[in-house]
Amino acid sequence: MTLSVAIAGATGYAGSEILRLLLSHPAYLAGDLEIGALTAHSNAGQQVGALMPHLPQLAQRTIEDTTIENLRGHDVVFLALPHGHSAEIGKQVEDAIVIDCAADFRLRSEKAWDEYYGGEYFGSWPYGIPELPGNRENLRGAKRVAVPGCFPTAITLGALPAIAKQLIAPDLDVVAVTGVSGAGKKAAVPFSGAETMANLRAYSPGGTHRHTPEVVQNLEPFADGEVSVSFTPVLAPLPRGILATISAPLQDGVTQADVDAAYQDFYAEEAFCHVLPAGQQPQTQNVVGSNMAHMQAHVDERARRLVITCAIDNLTKGTAGAAVQCMNLALDFDETLGLPQAAVAP
Amino acid sequence: MTLSVAIAGATGYAGSEILRLLLSHPAYLAGDLEIGALTAHSNAGQQVGALMPHLPQLAQRTIEDTTIENLRGHDVVFLALPHGHSAEIGKQVEDAIVIDCAADFRLRSEKAWDEYYGGEYFGSWPYGIPELPGNRENLRGAKRVAVPGCFPTAITLGALPAIAKQLIAPDLDVVAVTGVSGAGKKAAVPFSGAETMANLRAYSPGGTHRHTPEVVQNLEPFADGEVSVSFTPVLAPLPRGILATISAPLQDGVTQADVDAAYQDFYAEEAFCHVLPAGQQPQTQNVVGSNMAHMQAHVDERARRLVITCAIDNLTKGTAGAAVQCMNLALDFDETLGLPQAAVAP
Amino acid sequence: MTLSVAIAGATGYAGSEILRLLLSHPAYLAGDLEIGALTAHSNAGQQVGALMPHLPQLAQRTIEDTTIENLRGHDVVFLALPHGHSAEIGKQVEDAIVIDCAADFRLRSEKAWDEYYGGEYFGSWPYGIPELPGNRENLRGAKRVAVPGCFPTAITLGALPAIAKQLIAPDLDVVAVTGVSGAGKKAAVPFSGAETMANLRAYSPGGTHRHTPEVVQNLEPFADGEVSVSFTPVLAPLPRGILATISAPLQDGVTQADVDAAYQDFYAEEAFCHVLPAGQQPQTQNVVGSNMAHMQAHVDERARRLVITCAIDNLTKGTAGAAVQCMNLALDFDETLGLPQAAVAP
Amino acid sequence: MTLSVAIAGATGYAGSEILRLLLSHPAYLAGDLEIGALTAHSNAGQQVGALMPHLPQLAQRTIEDTTIENLRGHDVVFLALPHGHSAEIGKQVEDAIVIDCAADFRLRSEKAWDEYYGGEYFGSWPYGIPELPGNRENLRGAKRVAVPGCFPTAITLGALPAIAKQLIAPDLDVVAVTGVSGAGKKAAVPFSGAETMANLRAYSPGGTHRHTPEVVQNLEPFADGEVSVSFTPVLAPLPRGILATISAPLQDGVTQADVDAAYQDFYAEEAFCHVLPAGQQPQTQNVVGSNMAHMQAHVDERARRLVITCAIDNLTKGTAGAAVQCMNLALDFDETLGLPQAAVAP
Repeated sequence: MTLSVAIAGATGYAGSEILRLLLSHPAYLAGDLEIGALTAHSNAGQQVGALMPHLPQLAQRTIEDTTIENLRGHDVVFLALPHGHSAEIGKQVEDAIVIDCAADFRLRSEKAWDEYYGGEYFGSWPYGIPELPGNRENLRGAKRVAVPGCFPTAITLGALPAIAKQLIAPDLDVVAVTGVSGAGKKAAVPFSGAETMANLRAYSPGGTHRHTPEVVQNLEPFADGEVSVSFTPVLAPLPRGILATISAPLQDGVTQADVDAAYQDFYAEEAFCHVLPAGQQPQTQNVVGSNMAHMQAHVDERARRLVITCAIDNLTKGTAGAAVQCMNLALDFDETLGLPQAAVAP
Repeated sequence: MTLSVAIAGATGYAGSEILRLLLSHPAYLAGDLEIGALTAHSNAGQQVGALMPHLPQLAQRTIEDTTIENLRGHDVVFLALPHGHSAEIGKQVEDAIVIDCAADFRLRSEKAWDEYYGGEYFGSWPYGIPELPGNRENLRGAKRVAVPGCFPTAITLGALPAIAKQLIAPDLDVVAVTGVSGAGKKAAVPFSGAETMANLRAYSPGGTHRHTPEVVQNLEPFADGEVSVSFTPVLAPLPRGILATISAPLQDGVTQADVDAAYQDFYAEEAFCHVLPAGQQPQTQNVVGSNMAHMQAHVDERARRLVITCAIDNLTKGTAGAAVQCMNLALDFDETLGLPQAAVAP
Repeated sequence: MTLSVAIAGATGYAGSEILRLLLSHPAYLAGDLEIGALTAHSNAGQQVGALMPHLPQLAQRTIEDTTIENLRGHDVVFLALPHGHSAEIGKQVEDAIVIDCAADFRLRSEKAWDEYYGGEYFGSWPYGIPELPGNRENLRGAKRVAVPGCFPTAITLGALPAIAKQLIAPDLDVVAVTGVSGAGKKAAVPFSGAETMANLRAYSPGGTHRHTPEVVQNLEPFADGEVSVSFTPVLAPLPRGILATISAPLQDGVTQADVDAAYQDFYAEEAFCHVLPAGQQPQTQNVVGSNMAHMQAHVDERARRLVITCAIDNLTKGTAGAAVQCMNLALDFDETLGLPQAAVAP
Repeated sequence: MTLSVAIAGATGYAGSEILRLLLSHPAYLAGDLEIGALTAHSNAGQQVGALMPHLPQLAQRTIEDTTIENLRGHDVVFLALPHGHSAEIGKQVEDAIVIDCAADFRLRSEKAWDEYYGGEYFGSWPYGIPELPGNRENLRGAKRVAVPGCFPTAITLGALPAIAKQLIAPDLDVVAVTGVSGAGKKAAVPFSGAETMANLRAYSPGGTHRHTPEVVQNLEPFADGEVSVSFTPVLAPLPRGILATISAPLQDGVTQADVDAAYQDFYAEEAFCHVLPAGQQPQTQNVVGSNMAHMQAHVDERARRLVITCAIDNLTKGTAGAAVQCMNLALDFDETLGLPQAAVAP
């Protein structure tokens, strides 16, 4: 039986990246998985060739309107819609596996939701970071998945071994530098080429970025005590990529050797988490287009802090790759199918 | 039987891009093709993980010295060596299929060789653009292949329909803008980040670029008369991508409709040549990481010229993708195996 | 007496670049020239500090509405408005020197206007390239000036010596690569950072760009016969800068030595035209922020063509610098006042 | 009397930026200051036009060898030499004002020198941040000046009000993102365009960057207790600019209003320190080519930390602009002469 996959919001960066990955997915190549409805809002009625010329195989396909009717009858529905829109659709697509790339079902705490998003709280779905200990089982065979935000993915994967192995106090200072595709396919002067090339700027200052509570939620179950995260995102002139720098007070007696061993050990079995050899720093170009997180952790002896760096592609491991990884788990496929480990570098 | 593939010069951009493609090649994934010796010169003895961290699957592999001994015993040997080095090695690897990414065996004219390269002339091998009419047959089952230069690929594929269908006089003015990876993995101030970001500069001025005679050689068999090419390359601040702009005098009576029909018809059966719908221009981001050439041709009515634009990824269709495409043909595989049509955009 | 200068459209890139130059103009520093009304349309009522934080000296100034009342009573009025808007305003500002950065008064041919712009033809004003032989006199003391387009400036200055000294036939093929600020301060997906970084694309294909007739108009008086220009602009990932590549058939017998001598001689007295020494190519980073045009010309012996490259900063010599240069002439100041020759490189 | 200025290491980025600033310095324009010897090491004997084509006014000048003989007889000598080289030269240039852009004379603590640099300790010179309270007096009329590092300038200016007004505990976590010119004019693969464009990477991890003790030295006199700095620099794809993000624990009871008032007050009289209005974040493009530091400070209420962001141009306020500012003070000129406040944006 051929599985059918629909994408709502197919013309945005998350949706089109899911398509890019599906087009080389072994199940698709073998004819076991087919690409069904591709829907959008303002772009409905146009052809893929006009909107996403980087996917020439689908050039003749027409984008449909994002309605429940168009999305029904598929085995898997990816939702790559703006925050707030997926909740409504997500609840109506009854039988399909629904994989939501928005924030609507990520937070388990209604209080955190109210504080950072507000409006109706939709509850939470199984959360799409399989690398969180114990979480993979929630995702295998799941009917609903909330794909994590791009920043929480980088920060969580980077900090997790240090938190879980209690190398640090759970007081994280985070500066994460991101490429401009993180803002989405957006017509706005501050995100224009002229305003973003050759420029750096922080945004959502003072810990107001909505991805903050997601990091807390991810790490707290593994921490000895409450987790505090002070997070500042910085916009930099590259299309894709996040480099998160995470700093926290080192626990007494912890050495660089402890840190190296803990990190190597923690992710030894994970296909998409790559702890770099000593002396190497993660680089976003080494993960572009791949589903990998590259990371490194260094002891700052004088300040007695641990400084962790983690690089991901915000559109792949940070969104669409995670979504496909979760689809693989939901369908009980090999988790790594169709997900590149090699990056398009340089 | 498992086929074994070696790469000489594996740590440069061409070599590592061949590796990236092989790692997702269906024959590799099925265990029918294995990655054998990876060799280099100054990098011999180091690990892949230190030199090419974007290929984490191979992180533990050690780079060997580029010697004939290390390259022997493979079914396919890719040579991704500087110009002049591959001739020597290429002649000694006797039984293997040898696919050379350098210029050494590209030119059929010793005169052109002398004029543009000088030194010993090594003769020519079957030339790796399967899309040249009649050429695919030379490549199927070939034991030796000369992979074309990146600029000649873009210019040839862009100009070919117009030349072959005699829409233009064969007097080409070409300006091709290229990303900086075209210069190779090079330590040189003019190619440093500070000197290439936020900067544009032409180079090899006055028609002196060595890729010029290759374009002439490719097009002349299909032209009505001698082909003249005046070529100016321009360096621009992006890692990958070539956008070639080709201009030539329009033949009398040729209309935009003639041009559109000729282009669509010419490449109708080609998997990697995509003529864009009317109104769309090729963009390098839409071919990055893919083996595609996107192209468009516009009649300039006032000047009575045809202006063709063609975009490729210089490292993929421009080098490593073409090399793998030729390997597929040489091994009598499906020509398109392991070669992405979808690009990593944005 | 203190001269008063107003800028209509002060918050766009042209307007704010005029401001940047005025702020370091010796007349301003000496208190002989003051910055009067700064007007805009949708930004009226906001403070300079919020809209143009790169001009901290003016942070407290408020942007006024672009009305004739606000612009009256100044000695100089710069119009940095969208095409079509300046004609109306320009006609009402009676006593001031009016320097228009839009296209409205550039074309002397109503036929060319109709063909490329359409709508009401407003006539033409003295044209702001003082380096065109005989033109400086038209600008000195002028009450009205039409500032040239950015592409015509680069192409005209590059081609002029070759045309005027009859080194080439007047059949120009031009490919000009431009930075993204050329599109203005624009909220549009195709000009977003994600769609312009790491990307190249041609636009206005087939000779349809509106700057084409301006080049013809500039060069024809110096040419032996009709001038034909086939022009293709290419968008590249840098904020500022144009690199024009101009190619034309070489006249019989013309040598590289002839070309070098002609170019050096032609611009020997010009402060802002710099013919590079043999062997050097213009680079946009070497003109960024300056009012310079750097150029070079190379004979392509095989193709018997001359290939000229010319680099300018599209916002400085290409717009605002030319505007200030014309203001200097109109006010009978030293033409070079306040106009940097040194660039902000790298 | 005309003052004569020499630059040792004139062909690097610091040296050429000093030249750019001097060329528009009022004293130079008035003929009161002349540019004397320009020296370099490997570039000696070449012309400025070949090495620094962005300074066309000096194109015909020849670079001399960096010897004490060539540097003698000037009123001011700028040293823009690699760390370790300026100490030797600096001690021999006896009568001139010597302004050193290297690290050799920056640290007052021999212990810190040994720890971070090693080798002979040369002592310290008056330190070139006039904005440090009490320091301007040391610089006025000084014969020797140690120009600060680029990172310490951004971090110090950003953190100083919070430290001096005791808004924070002096435990700083710093992530500073820098453009690639910070690495100097360097031929090295990791700083090539292909390896730096579309890429982000941290370096000098674990608090090992040599600029760290300089920040401690600058802030400690104003702090209540020992200052700890954990500093991670990140390399990003832009030519110029530093965006420093500085985070520290907020003192009890401190509010956003306190912070805003303290910052506005602290720099009210400083020409080159611009505290942005509430709601605006510093952007590097708004300081490019200028001598400004733009900054903002935000209270992270949940984490009870203060997060300060500060943007400078690493080559201007971060090096050459500071050097000229110090020259102005040493010569008892108006401190702001020749130093742009307006930036070359976008």
